[in-house]
Amino acid sequence: MSKINPQDIPHKMLSLDPFSQWLGIEIVEVKKGYCKLGLRIRSEMLNSMQKAHGGIAYALADTAFGFAANTHGRFAVSIETSINHIEALHEDDYVIAETQLDIAKNKLGFAYVNLSVGDKIVAVFKGVVYRTSKEWL
Amino acid sequence: MSKINPQDIPHKMLSLDPFSQWLGIEIVEVKKGYCKLGLRIRSEMLNSMQKAHGGIAYALADTAFGFAANTHGRFAVSIETSINHIEALHEDDYVIAETQLDIAKNKLGFAYVNLSVGDKIVAVFKGVVYRTSKEWL
Amino acid sequence: MSKINPQDIPHKMLSLDPFSQWLGIEIVEVKKGYCKLGLRIRSEMLNSMQKAHGGIAYALADTAFGFAANTHGRFAVSIETSINHIEALHEDDYVIAETQLDIAKNKLGFAYVNLSVGDKIVAVFKGVVYRTSKEWL
Amino acid sequence: MSKINPQDIPHKMLSLDPFSQWLGIEIVEVKKGYCKLGLRIRSEMLNSMQKAHGGIAYALADTAFGFAANTHGRFAVSIETSINHIEALHEDDYVIAETQLDIAKNKLGFAYVNLSVGDKIVAVFKGVVYRTSKEWL
Repeated sequence: MSKINPQDIPHKMLSLDPFSQWLGIEIVEVKKGYCKLGLRIRSEMLNSMQKAHGGIAYALADTAFGFAANTHGRFAVSIETSINHIEALHEDDYVIAETQLDIAKNKLGFAYVNLSVGDKIVAVFKGVVYRTSKEWL
Repeated sequence: MSKINPQDIPHKMLSLDPFSQWLGIEIVEVKKGYCKLGLRIRSEMLNSMQKAHGGIAYALADTAFGFAANTHGRFAVSIETSINHIEALHEDDYVIAETQLDIAKNKLGFAYVNLSVGDKIVAVFKGVVYRTSKEWL
Repeated sequence: MSKINPQDIPHKMLSLDPFSQWLGIEIVEVKKGYCKLGLRIRSEMLNSMQKAHGGIAYALADTAFGFAANTHGRFAVSIETSINHIEALHEDDYVIAETQLDIAKNKLGFAYVNLSVGDKIVAVFKGVVYRTSKEWL
Repeated sequence: MSKINPQDIPHKMLSLDPFSQWLGIEIVEVKKGYCKLGLRIRSEMLNSMQKAHGGIAYALADTAFGFAANTHGRFAVSIETSINHIEALHEDDYVIAETQLDIAKNKLGFAYVNLSVGDKIVAVFKGVVYRTSKEWL
């Protein structure tokens, strides 16, 4: 069993993760099997249409997904993920990612993640992790 | 009909796209319905496990996908995409994204994108775009 | 506007749908933007490993998804769908499919569908429909 | 190592698979890491719009995917799959499913499958299998 508390794992992960730091990802709430993150869209995150690049919404969702999957104590790596981009994101939008489901089996884990701005869902995400045998300490 | 040549659209898009510029995305080859891009993994693109964040591979694939879909002349926006992360990416890896299929219908477009490092496929991606009525000029 | 009540559309669709009838799909509950269906696994639905073929879980989820999307009144066709098979399904299992989200935009619609047997989630599904201009009457 | 020849595994699987038999799936060509199947759309496979139910295209693609993944000798089960429905399928269409890629890692396998009618691609599919330790004999 891992000696670290489940809710401390995402904080440790974020402290070690240069890209999530570049994105400015903030941890809103975490508990075992659950993660809620926030991110403010900045001008350097835009694409040629002056909307947030699809990679930004994806990266936020994938981070919430990965953080939640790792709260179970073992290193879990994202192997399959899909995202539906429903609403365009603009500079200064504050985007929330929240895991909606958490199923942890021996080798695999599954989750949904919703992205929202205010009351509006802007993207939906579904993913599968592979759970390695390595533990967070 | 759009007055711009298909192969010039991705170059124009990249010139207007701050996030793809931050990623250091390079256009290797483009033609109508086809796009091949490259990206070098830098230290600020890593995650807590010292591999490239999943958002980096996704952003590269989504950019190749979007660029290829826009070569047909109308603004096309990514609505659904999925990616399988097959091999971890490390700092200094040079990753190539190449579209493998291109189907452009009136309102929708479909493609596969393969990501590779050297001879090895590191990720596979599939996506759907919505083709708006706005044209590249 | 469509003259048929939203909740009557799935009943009409099922009455016209030979494959869903072959599957033995039963409507448990429907309302605008929501659908809950049931299906009993029969021996002719099994694969070579004596589990339900993946196409059975998919077909049930896709039917719930399609029925819910059509309750908004216009013909909606599934364009992209993904499913995670979490637990194997066996002969005689009664599987419930329930939509978990419903977002209907002008041309596109989005939903999650959960499949369960008893209290256990056995598969998760996410999809995108294209909403045509043709109405249910 | 498995004692059965790779190309014999799909034939054995089909002989044991009641649902693929009901579908009328025919093996066109198989070899290690590759599978090409055919299926004729029958009236009992249609949906309420008189097109083939999405579950039919999915089941054909998933079968080709599963057959190819099992040619590597170990039981492989589909855990995540996605399909884009590009063209509607009609009664009497003969649909071909052909795997387009085959990556078999220790625990996981990845593939694309294209579905076509004549020269036209009608659907594209991507999937992940989990490779168990049980071998085909």
